[in-house]
Amino acid sequence: MAAAPASSASAAGNREAFRVAVTNTLERRLFYVPSFKIYGGVAGLYDYGPPGCAVKANVLAFWRQHFVLEEGMLEVDCPCVTPEVVLKASGHVDKFTDLMVKDEKTGTCYRADHLLKDFCKDKLEKDNTLPPEKTAEFNHVLAVLDDLSAEQLGAKIKEYGIVAPDTKNPLSDPYPFNLMFQTSIGPSGLSPGYMRPETAQGIFVNFKDLYYYNGNKLPFAAAQIGQAFRNEISPRQGLLRVREFTLAEIEHFVDPEDKSHPKFRDVSDLEFLMFPREQQLTGKSAMKLNIGQAVSEGTVNNETLGYFIGRVYLFLTQLGIDKDRLRFRQHLPNEMAHYAADCWDAEIECSFGWIECVGIADRSAYDLRAHSDKSGVALEAHEKFAEPREVEKLVITPSKKELGLAFKGNQRMVLEALEAMSETEALNMKSALESKGEVEFKVCTLGKDVTIKKSMVSINMEKKKEHQRKFTPSVIEPSFGIGRIIYCLFEHCFYQRPGKAEDEQLNVFGFPPLVAPIKCTVFPLVKIEKFEVVAKKISKALTAAGISHIIDMTGNTIGKRYARTDEIGVPLAITVDNTTSVTVRDRDSKDQIRVEVDEVASVVKEVTDGQSTWADIMWRYPAHTASAAEEEEASET
Amino acid sequence: MAAAPASSASAAGNREAFRVAVTNTLERRLFYVPSFKIYGGVAGLYDYGPPGCAVKANVLAFWRQHFVLEEGMLEVDCPCVTPEVVLKASGHVDKFTDLMVKDEKTGTCYRADHLLKDFCKDKLEKDNTLPPEKTAEFNHVLAVLDDLSAEQLGAKIKEYGIVAPDTKNPLSDPYPFNLMFQTSIGPSGLSPGYMRPETAQGIFVNFKDLYYYNGNKLPFAAAQIGQAFRNEISPRQGLLRVREFTLAEIEHFVDPEDKSHPKFRDVSDLEFLMFPREQQLTGKSAMKLNIGQAVSEGTVNNETLGYFIGRVYLFLTQLGIDKDRLRFRQHLPNEMAHYAADCWDAEIECSFGWIECVGIADRSAYDLRAHSDKSGVALEAHEKFAEPREVEKLVITPSKKELGLAFKGNQRMVLEALEAMSETEALNMKSALESKGEVEFKVCTLGKDVTIKKSMVSINMEKKKEHQRKFTPSVIEPSFGIGRIIYCLFEHCFYQRPGKAEDEQLNVFGFPPLVAPIKCTVFPLVKIEKFEVVAKKISKALTAAGISHIIDMTGNTIGKRYARTDEIGVPLAITVDNTTSVTVRDRDSKDQIRVEVDEVASVVKEVTDGQSTWADIMWRYPAHTASAAEEEEASET
Repeated sequence: MAAAPASSASAAGNREAFRVAVTNTLERRLFYVPSFKIYGGVAGLYDYGPPGCAVKANVLAFWRQHFVLEEGMLEVDCPCVTPEVVLKASGHVDKFTDLMVKDEKTGTCYRADHLLKDFCKDKLEKDNTLPPEKTAEFNHVLAVLDDLSAEQLGAKIKEYGIVAPDTKNPLSDPYPFNLMFQTSIGPSGLSPGYMRPETAQGIFVNFKDLYYYNGNKLPFAAAQIGQAFRNEISPRQGLLRVREFTLAEIEHFVDPEDKSHPKFRDVSDLEFLMFPREQQLTGKSAMKLNIGQAVSEGTVNNETLGYFIGRVYLFLTQLGIDKDRLRFRQHLPNEMAHYAADCWDAEIECSFGWIECVGIADRSAYDLRAHSDKSGVALEAHEKFAEPREVEKLVITPSKKELGLAFKGNQRMVLEALEAMSETEALNMKSALESKGEVEFKVCTLGKDVTIKKSMVSINMEKKKEHQRKFTPSVIEPSFGIGRIIYCLFEHCFYQRPGKAEDEQLNVFGFPPLVAPIKCTVFPLVKIEKFEVVAKKISKALTAAGISHIIDMTGNTIGKRYARTDEIGVPLAITVDNTTSVTVRDRDSKDQIRVEVDEVASVVKEVTDGQSTWADIMWRYPAHTASAAEEEEASET
Repeated sequence: MAAAPASSASAAGNREAFRVAVTNTLERRLFYVPSFKIYGGVAGLYDYGPPGCAVKANVLAFWRQHFVLEEGMLEVDCPCVTPEVVLKASGHVDKFTDLMVKDEKTGTCYRADHLLKDFCKDKLEKDNTLPPEKTAEFNHVLAVLDDLSAEQLGAKIKEYGIVAPDTKNPLSDPYPFNLMFQTSIGPSGLSPGYMRPETAQGIFVNFKDLYYYNGNKLPFAAAQIGQAFRNEISPRQGLLRVREFTLAEIEHFVDPEDKSHPKFRDVSDLEFLMFPREQQLTGKSAMKLNIGQAVSEGTVNNETLGYFIGRVYLFLTQLGIDKDRLRFRQHLPNEMAHYAADCWDAEIECSFGWIECVGIADRSAYDLRAHSDKSGVALEAHEKFAEPREVEKLVITPSKKELGLAFKGNQRMVLEALEAMSETEALNMKSALESKGEVEFKVCTLGKDVTIKKSMVSINMEKKKEHQRKFTPSVIEPSFGIGRIIYCLFEHCFYQRPGKAEDEQLNVFGFPPLVAPIKCTVFPLVKIEKFEVVAKKISKALTAAGISHIIDMTGNTIGKRYARTDEIGVPLAITVDNTTSVTVRDRDSKDQIRVEVDEVASVVKEVTDGQSTWADIMWRYPAHTASAAEEEEASET
C-alpha cells in the first residue's frame, strides 16, 4: 500500500545490480535453486540446497525457542490435505481468489492487477510527455489497485488498451481464479479437498481440545510450523512469491474483554520503526516509536498485539535483520478484513522494496465463530465467577396457544423465528407492539411476513443469576512467512570486500552464528599427515558438541579456502598449523587468535551458541600473528 | 510377507486390550487426534497435539544429529507439489497403484487384497470344520497375496463369493487406483501435478548440482525430511497407514564398483535380530547376527548397505525402541523391484504385528538413469584416472558409400541404427558377417528388416587411451516412516503400574529424556508464595537452558500431579518444598534426590541432554526422604 520511497533510475539500477550479485551467489552456492531444473523447472517452486536448508532449520529452531518454548505455546502439527468443508467455513473456497485475464488467442493467463500496475509504472517512468493530470491519474490507479473490483479492473484495461504482454493479443475480461490447489480425497472422487493455504485453520478446528489441554484457561497460544500452498497465477520475485512455502503461525486466544498481557513490560521499552495508519494517510514516513507508548496512546489496539509486535522485532533482529530496514506498518482500513480489530505487518526492506514478512492481526472472534456455525460444535470459553452475578437478560416467551390459533401448521416455524431474534430485533418488536399493538415479522423458513400481535409474545428484561460467562475468544495471530524472512536475511547479511586481484570483489554472507548454515571449518594449513590427524580429532570433538562444520583437506591455498567459506557465511575457521594449538579466525574482522587443540571445540561452541561473542573471546586468547606461509591470507585469495 | 508368530485368541485379546490402553491415553492427552474432528474427521489424517508434536520434533532433531550432522550429509528441502513429468520418469504415474473393487450398488471402494485377506483370516480363525486342504489353500493365498494380479484377485473374490462387507452387495472386478493426490499447477489447467508420494525424487533430480557441490566426489549422501502423500483407498491401523506423513530419506550415492564404507568398522561389531531371505523361505525365525559377519558372508550385499543397517539399529534403539522387538528383514525376491540389488526393512513389533518402519534398499542406478533418460540431462559421475588407461573398445564404422548405394533415401536411418547397436548386438553381427557374409538387421525407424553386407560396416575391437571413467552411481536409500516409528515408540515406552486405589492402574510413558515431549515439571509442594517464587526462578533458568518444562501451580495433591505428568512421559519432576534446595524425582524409579535451587537447572540439563543418566546423578546428591506431607506420593495418587 505505502509507496516505496521515490528513487532515481540509478538507485534502481544499483538495487538491481546488488540483487543480481546476491542471487547469483545464492544459486551458485546452492542456497536455493529452481525446483525440477533438469525438466525446465516450474515457476514459483524452489528447492533449498544444503546451506539454504541449514539456514531454514536454524531459523525454525530459533522460532521454536523464542516463541513456543519461551511463551509455553501449544505446538500442533496438522495435515496439508484439507477437506472442502473446513475451507468453506473459513471463507477460502469463496474468497481466496485473484483476478485473472486470459490472452484470448493463446489462453495464457495473467494477473489483471499486475498488467495494470506494469502499464502505469511504465508510463510514469518512461513517458516524458505525460501531462500532469495523467501522471496524477496513473498514481491514483497504483494507490487504489488492491481495491478495484473485476469490473473496474476490466474497464481500466480496456480504457488503456492493455494487451497480452507476450503476444499483443486482446485480453479477456478479468475473472476470479481460486488460488488453492484442488485435489480429491479418497478413491470415490466425491470428497473434494485442497492443499491448505495457511496453517491456521488446523489450530482453529482444534480449539476445543487445546482449551481443555490448557486446563480450560485463557489466554493461551497454539503454534504450528508447516507447508502452505497458493497456486499463484504467474509467480515472480523469486523466493518472495512462491506456490509452496513454509509458514510459522501463532494463534493466541484471549478474552475479548481483557487483552492485557502479563509480560508486556518485558518489551514495553523497545523502540523501533513504526508506520501507523495516520502517518500513511497524511503522506508521512515511518518513525521510531516506543511500543509501550504506542499501546498506551491507542496507536496499537491492545497490549497483547503490542507484546507480539515487540517479540517479533526481537526475533527478526536477533536473526540478523537490519533494524533500520525493518518497520511495522499498520493496515489501512481498506486492507483489513471487516472483522479485524487491528493489524500490523512487519515489513523488511530489500531490493524489491518493502516486503510483508510477518502479519500480526487481531482477528477478533471471526474464525472460531465461523467454524462453530459450520460444524455445530461450540468453540467457546467460560469464565467461572467467584460468586454468582445478577444480570439483566432479555427473555422472549411466545404464547403457544395464541400462535397455534393464528398460524396452525406454521406455528412451529413462527415460534422458532421469534425465539431466534437477536436482542436488538426483540427490543424493536417490543416497542412496536407496545405502540402499535401488532407488527409485520419476516419468517425465513416460511419465506414470508406474518403479523405478530401483542398477545402472541411477551418480551421482557428479567433478572437472572449467572455462575459463569460464556464467550468466543478473540484471536491474535502472528503469521510468519519463513521463506520471505530468509530471503531478506540473505540480502541484509550479504556484502562484498576487495580481493587480492585488481577489481576482484569477494562475497561474504555475514550471518550471525545463530543462523549460519555451517558454524566452523577445519583446514590443515598444509597437506601433511600430522596436521590431518589433528584436524580429524577436532572434527570429532565438534561433531560430539553438535556443531555443524566442514573439514577441507584439499590442497588449495588457505586464502582460497577462506574465500569459499566466507561466501556461505561460515563465522569461524580453524587452521591447523601446529599439533598443540591452532589458529581460529573470525569471518568479518579476519582477526585471528591461538587456542589449544583440546579447548577449541568448546570455544567454538561458546560463540556459536551465543553465550559469548567474538569480542568476548578475543580478550581471552593470544592474537595470532601471520607467519610467512600465511601472508597470502592477508590479501584474501 | 513373513507371517506373524502363531498366537492364541487370548494373546490377540491381550494385544488388543494393550493397544486400547495406549491409544486411549494418547488421544486423551492429545498426543494425536483425528484431524478435522469437529467436522467428523477424514480417514487417514491425524493431527499431532502438543506432546505428540514435541516427540516428533525431538525424533527429527535426533535424526538430523545422528545422520545429517554425523555423516556430513547434504540436506535439501524440495516442494511437495511435483509436476507430472518427474513422476512419469520415476514410474509413479504408471505403477503407484493399489487394486480396488467397488460396491456395485453404492459405489463404496475397498482394497481388493484387504477383502481377500480378511476373508481367509476369518475362515482360518473361526471355521472349525475347515478340511486340511482348505486350510492349506487359505494359508497359501495369504502368503502370495502381494503377488496376485488384478485377474487373479478378481477370480478369487468370485470363487469365494466375497461381497461388500457393509452392504453384502456384489463387487466390481478389481482395477488399479493411483494412490497419488492429483492437482493442477497454475491457472491454465494444462499442467497436471501430484503431491509427492516420497521425498526421494527431489534429491535425484538435483543429483548434478549436489555432486558438484560435493566437489565432484563420490560417495556422498543427500537427505531430506518432509511431507509425503498417499491417497489410500481405505486407511486403517491408525497412525500406521495414513494419507499424509513425514518421511526422512537418505540417498547415498556410491560408485557401483566400490560399495565399501570407510566407517563400516564403527558398526561391524553390532549384533541384532536379522531375518535373511534364506530363513524366511525355510520357515525359520529371525536370529541374532553380527552385522560384520553378515556382510563378509554375503548375507548383506555390501558394506555401505550394512553400515546403514547398523546406523539405523543405533538410531532406533537410542530413541527407545526395544531391541528385542526390532528386526531387519530381507526382502524376498518377489518383493524387490527388478533393479534392486538388495533390500532390508527395519521392522518393529507392535500390537498390529511386525511393522515396516525403515526401508534400506540398494536401488542400483535405476532412479538416476530414469531421470537421465526422461530429461536428457546426464546424471553421472566421473572417475579421473591418475594415469590414462588403455582400454579395448568396440568401434562400429559404417561405410557411407556402400549404405548410400544400397539404401538411397533410407541411408541415414540404417546408419544410425548400426551405430546405436549394443556391444552384444555388434559382436553377433560381426560373427554373422564373417561366417555368412550378410545378415538381416531390424531398423526400427524404418519398421522393417534390411540386409547388411560385409562391405557395409566394419566392426572391430580397438585400443584406446581413456583419461576418466564415466558411470551412473548406485544409490543406497534408507527411508524412514517417522509416524510409524513414533507410534511403535509409544507402544514400546508405555507401561502401567498400580495406583493407590484398589485395581487402579496408572499409565506411564517411559520415554528416554531424548524424546520426552517435556523434560521436566516444577511443582510448589504447597500453594504458598515463597515456594511459587522459587518455582518461577527455576522455570526461568530452565527456559534459558532451552529445557521444555511445565510449571504446575494448581493446588492438586503432589501424587496427582506426578500421575498426570508420568502419563505424558516427563522424566524428571522438581518439587519446591524449601527455598534453598528442592526435590528432584525420577519418573521410572520414583527415586528422589535433593539439589540446591541454583544448581537444579544444570542437573536437569545434564540428564536430558544425555551427558549423564539418572543413575550417575543419584550418587552425587543426597537421597530425599519423604516427609509426612508427601506420604501420599509413595502410593501415587
